[in-house]
Amino acid sequence: MKILPDSVEKLIQSFEKLPGIGPKTASRLTFYLLHVPQHELDSFSDAVKNVRLGTLTCSRCSNVSETDPCVICASPNRDESIICVVEQPIDVVSVEKTGKFDGVYHVLHGSINPLSNIGPDELTIDKLLTRVQSDKIKEIILATNPDMEGEATAMYIRREILRLNPPAGGQNSNLNGLKITRIAHGLPVGADIEYADEVTLGRAIEGRDEY
Amino acid sequence: MKILPDSVEKLIQSFEKLPGIGPKTASRLTFYLLHVPQHELDSFSDAVKNVRLGTLTCSRCSNVSETDPCVICASPNRDESIICVVEQPIDVVSVEKTGKFDGVYHVLHGSINPLSNIGPDELTIDKLLTRVQSDKIKEIILATNPDMEGEATAMYIRREILRLNPPAGGQNSNLNGLKITRIAHGLPVGADIEYADEVTLGRAIEGRDEY
Repeated sequence: MKILPDSVEKLIQSFEKLPGIGPKTASRLTFYLLHVPQHELDSFSDAVKNVRLGTLTCSRCSNVSETDPCVICASPNRDESIICVVEQPIDVVSVEKTGKFDGVYHVLHGSINPLSNIGPDELTIDKLLTRVQSDKIKEIILATNPDMEGEATAMYIRREILRLNPPAGGQNSNLNGLKITRIAHGLPVGADIEYADEVTLGRAIEGRDEY
Repeated sequence: MKILPDSVEKLIQSFEKLPGIGPKTASRLTFYLLHVPQHELDSFSDAVKNVRLGTLTCSRCSNVSETDPCVICASPNRDESIICVVEQPIDVVSVEKTGKFDGVYHVLHGSINPLSNIGPDELTIDKLLTRVQSDKIKEIILATNPDMEGEATAMYIRREILRLNPPAGGQNSNLNGLKITRIAHGLPVGADIEYADEVTLGRAIEGRDEY
């Protein structure tokens, strides 16, 4: 017996397609929306329909933006000689929130992941390499995720930059004035050494700093 | 500096209004939708806009339905003398999935909750009492949630039914042929006695059955 109206079933199915939302959550959200006034449904509906309209990709950093170049690339207050390479537009928001970075970004739109058939050509790595060669870049900060795909992507980018800018004296981390850095691995603030996994703790010891 | 396009901000805000979705999840869902083809956005958007169109409230059981009476109330295969009282339309789906119930339902659309200003008059209790009096009802199963509000609602309904149908011989659970029952409390299937909370375990012992 079909218990639910078609319109309810349809919305549950739409919610289920979203990442991290299972059948239970999808039903809960749908039944919640049944109690919401129609004008709020309309505004939610319009927000979904229009999320991509009026957004474009910044031709310089590939971030999602309303303008080209994006506000960060266009800002005179940002240091264009430092590029922070991230996987997703959402990572730009995270780095911006720290207030610790006043350079510019490069958004890869993913990470190298052979299991999902995502190779370097699916990402904006070519564009990054062009930027590195043409601009007066002093530092590339590789801020891909500290997981297997993110590490592989960081290693690939580092190798490609080295291939294009062979170091003069064999010093890898300083190629004709260009520094390649990777964000630090270590214990998150507030963590407990007792419960840290061994890989993270090992990285924290390796990356120890003078105090 | 405004980093995100307006359309993206708007969708994040819409998602944040949903129950159980915080700012992080709202951003994650929004950025996921940026990668989705427009026709899928359109179908999601339409599903949100139309979730309430074409749904109505069954005049008999107050469940969300496409027809009036709803498919369950209209079905000749359901036993109309047993009413299962639930808080929400979604609970009807849960009870139906068990396959253990072939009666009809009554949806209260909430539970008595003085802190949220929800009293008996905000629920469909009056309609339930009318049903109980006019129809040939043999049993009322109170299937409100086993939490404070659900228990209070169940107690209130029981008291009101008793007031309207004073028991002949002082036997509460059998008023002129009408039985009022409450779904059983006890250990969930697959649970571990060691980790059960004392209230649940106490109820499981009180509600023990011959074996």
